[in-house]
Amino acid sequence: MKKYSEMTKEELTAELEDLKSKYADAKGKGLKLNMARGLPSAEQLDMEADFFNTLNPTVDFHSELGIDCRNYGELTGIHEARQLMADMMEVSPEEIIVFGNSSLNIMFDTVARSMDFGVLGSTPWNRLDKVKFLCPVPGYDRHFAITELFGIEMINIPMNSEGPDMDLVEKYVGSDPAVKGIWCVPKYSNPSGVTYSDEVVRRFANLKPAAEDFRIYWDNAYTIHHLYNGREDQLLEILAECKKAGNPNLVWKFCSTSKVTFPGSGIAALAASEENLEYVKKILTIQTIGHDKLNQLRHVRYFKNIDGMHEHMKKHAEIIRPKFELVLNILDRDLSPLGIGEWTHPNGGYFVSFDAPEGTAKRIVGLCKEAGVTLTGAGATYPYKKDPHDSNIRIAPTFPPIGELEQALNIFTLCVKLAGAEKLLGQI
Amino acid sequence: MKKYSEMTKEELTAELEDLKSKYADAKGKGLKLNMARGLPSAEQLDMEADFFNTLNPTVDFHSELGIDCRNYGELTGIHEARQLMADMMEVSPEEIIVFGNSSLNIMFDTVARSMDFGVLGSTPWNRLDKVKFLCPVPGYDRHFAITELFGIEMINIPMNSEGPDMDLVEKYVGSDPAVKGIWCVPKYSNPSGVTYSDEVVRRFANLKPAAEDFRIYWDNAYTIHHLYNGREDQLLEILAECKKAGNPNLVWKFCSTSKVTFPGSGIAALAASEENLEYVKKILTIQTIGHDKLNQLRHVRYFKNIDGMHEHMKKHAEIIRPKFELVLNILDRDLSPLGIGEWTHPNGGYFVSFDAPEGTAKRIVGLCKEAGVTLTGAGATYPYKKDPHDSNIRIAPTFPPIGELEQALNIFTLCVKLAGAEKLLGQI
Repeated sequence: MKKYSEMTKEELTAELEDLKSKYADAKGKGLKLNMARGLPSAEQLDMEADFFNTLNPTVDFHSELGIDCRNYGELTGIHEARQLMADMMEVSPEEIIVFGNSSLNIMFDTVARSMDFGVLGSTPWNRLDKVKFLCPVPGYDRHFAITELFGIEMINIPMNSEGPDMDLVEKYVGSDPAVKGIWCVPKYSNPSGVTYSDEVVRRFANLKPAAEDFRIYWDNAYTIHHLYNGREDQLLEILAECKKAGNPNLVWKFCSTSKVTFPGSGIAALAASEENLEYVKKILTIQTIGHDKLNQLRHVRYFKNIDGMHEHMKKHAEIIRPKFELVLNILDRDLSPLGIGEWTHPNGGYFVSFDAPEGTAKRIVGLCKEAGVTLTGAGATYPYKKDPHDSNIRIAPTFPPIGELEQALNIFTLCVKLAGAEKLLGQI
Repeated sequence: MKKYSEMTKEELTAELEDLKSKYADAKGKGLKLNMARGLPSAEQLDMEADFFNTLNPTVDFHSELGIDCRNYGELTGIHEARQLMADMMEVSPEEIIVFGNSSLNIMFDTVARSMDFGVLGSTPWNRLDKVKFLCPVPGYDRHFAITELFGIEMINIPMNSEGPDMDLVEKYVGSDPAVKGIWCVPKYSNPSGVTYSDEVVRRFANLKPAAEDFRIYWDNAYTIHHLYNGREDQLLEILAECKKAGNPNLVWKFCSTSKVTFPGSGIAALAASEENLEYVKKILTIQTIGHDKLNQLRHVRYFKNIDGMHEHMKKHAEIIRPKFELVLNILDRDLSPLGIGEWTHPNGGYFVSFDAPEGTAKRIVGLCKEAGVTLTGAGATYPYKKDPHDSNIRIAPTFPPIGELEQALNIFTLCVKLAGAEKLLGQI
């Protein structure tokens, strides 16, 4: 098979006709497959059955420190849950507040708190003319949705294989006091799979922000979500690096067990310097009496400790890995010979990031949708849903059963080829 | 025994000496009793053991409509949980969003949302020079803490036996566009135990606010929390009344199962008109992917339906009622003959509201504390913690075992007498 770019117009036109005919067949099958979001599969969730044995009528509901977890109180979480999340987030328990079921909600509230009350005594952002966030791209659509909702101006920062373009980050953060934050998924990044290099983390920790209330929004969602034994990415722990650099207050770290136990029924946590947390607690104590301590207790009793959690994540990897390998195999089989598209080979996380030929992503997602395969919207990985190259597509292989995933990927590569041929022929 | 007010100075001085000696004895016992907050007792919580059998490894985790409750999604809650909370809150499921574990958190977020984004298209409150809330007093300290945090000016509205002084409410709401809300605990009010009369509810529903974004913050925390069989207070359902009055958007209703199942591990809900909820959902969908559906499922499977919940609350009443009766008996035994203090005789809820002689509440709470009995702080039931009469004290009988409660009340009445005598003698 020739690469598309090496085909004559006639060859490519014939190829396109063939693809259109195959696409019509595919559409005729009336499939309904969803790869839009990074959901765990039913098979992963079934694995957690024992979780529901951890709390039963015969157990003692008191925490290690004697707190009755069934009653009010413990704003920052029970001791052993703080310890578990501290180990997961590689900080000390004093640097942890355990929240409810959603790290996204913590992030939203962290931005909202800054809007309404400022950060550690700074001017509330809602009194400022302009607030800006840096957004490494491609990135996580739900991050961008938060800052967009609050009217915060978002600035694209290109990602490379080591993390965000740090020259650009340092330039913006160091010179513009309106720049108050940067969204980061530093490990197995959503969607690119990149893990930030030590050098990048150190440059983050050593930022000299023009704004006293600038913070790094470090969403370490996939910290223990490896795909391969012995091929785990390593991420330097940023809070320790910030402390070393004399900037202990520079970072908010977010994490949850949504993709460890149950999406929606996990526990989420915020990690930060004790001074940052004191400020959060002053407001949090007005917002709620406390989060769900019984669910904290369930988690602690289920995993025992961080080792238990790591062992558990290996079982998730066993289920997820074949799906990633299938995706990569089909992409390689169908597209590599034709020289269209580029994609990532992540060692963990929930996504494969696919870069289609410039100007074809929307067309591909639309074609897939018509053929019954729902993907994350084209553009979703960019602020304001505007991919300047109309190229990036996030592939989420985890949710569908492997048979459906194969069907979906076959349709996906067919649509990529179709749009690629159309593009080269000047039809789109 | 003579009333204190009828005693001569000599008689009262002798009485005070006697009280001081008894107080010294009481202090010597080194007690440590806590009646500060309305916590359920361990006995109540033990009763819920079966709750933990509702979800076990063998059950089906799908909702009635086929949603896998272990995975992401269902922003407004699973259908059957919306139905259960709708029945509890006497509205339709379409008028319900089920949230996380805390109705306080919903209230905080509802105020925060109005500050940041306005209400149904109105100007965000943080852009206004002045925002005011009406606060029926005595009231719930955590309500007042929210509005204080956001810099909202709070205006005291006296409570009477039918509810808030509605002449005053109508005057403020109808004339001042800066008045954006009123905090209400309409049934078994915290702390007074009052249930608003039908007339009061109808006047609320028929308010003609000067501000388009004025809302009634209707915290129906004790809606099914009766103390006596056959002596249940009846509260007119306000959303239906608002609709009748042509003001469907006038009210936010809040409720939770914190004192039905577990404080911190219950489910909370917001009820409002569908138009109000559409506005909430637009922002909520950015804030979180969804709340804890497994906990929703636990609740639905535990109670089956609202009848199950009502039956369950009768068991709570069996445990709580003797504590309330003990409190009322001791107050009556020790204080009625002396003519000092007035207190409520609620049919439900979690509190007895005690009005000490003017200018003695702080002294009483301080004396109790020194003798090892922690009460809710004097003034806590007023905005800014300022009780203009220094009189109201909230008694929370539910948490201590009955033996400890008796000890605590004996010390309480001793301190009331002591402060009462001091006051009459001009010593405080």
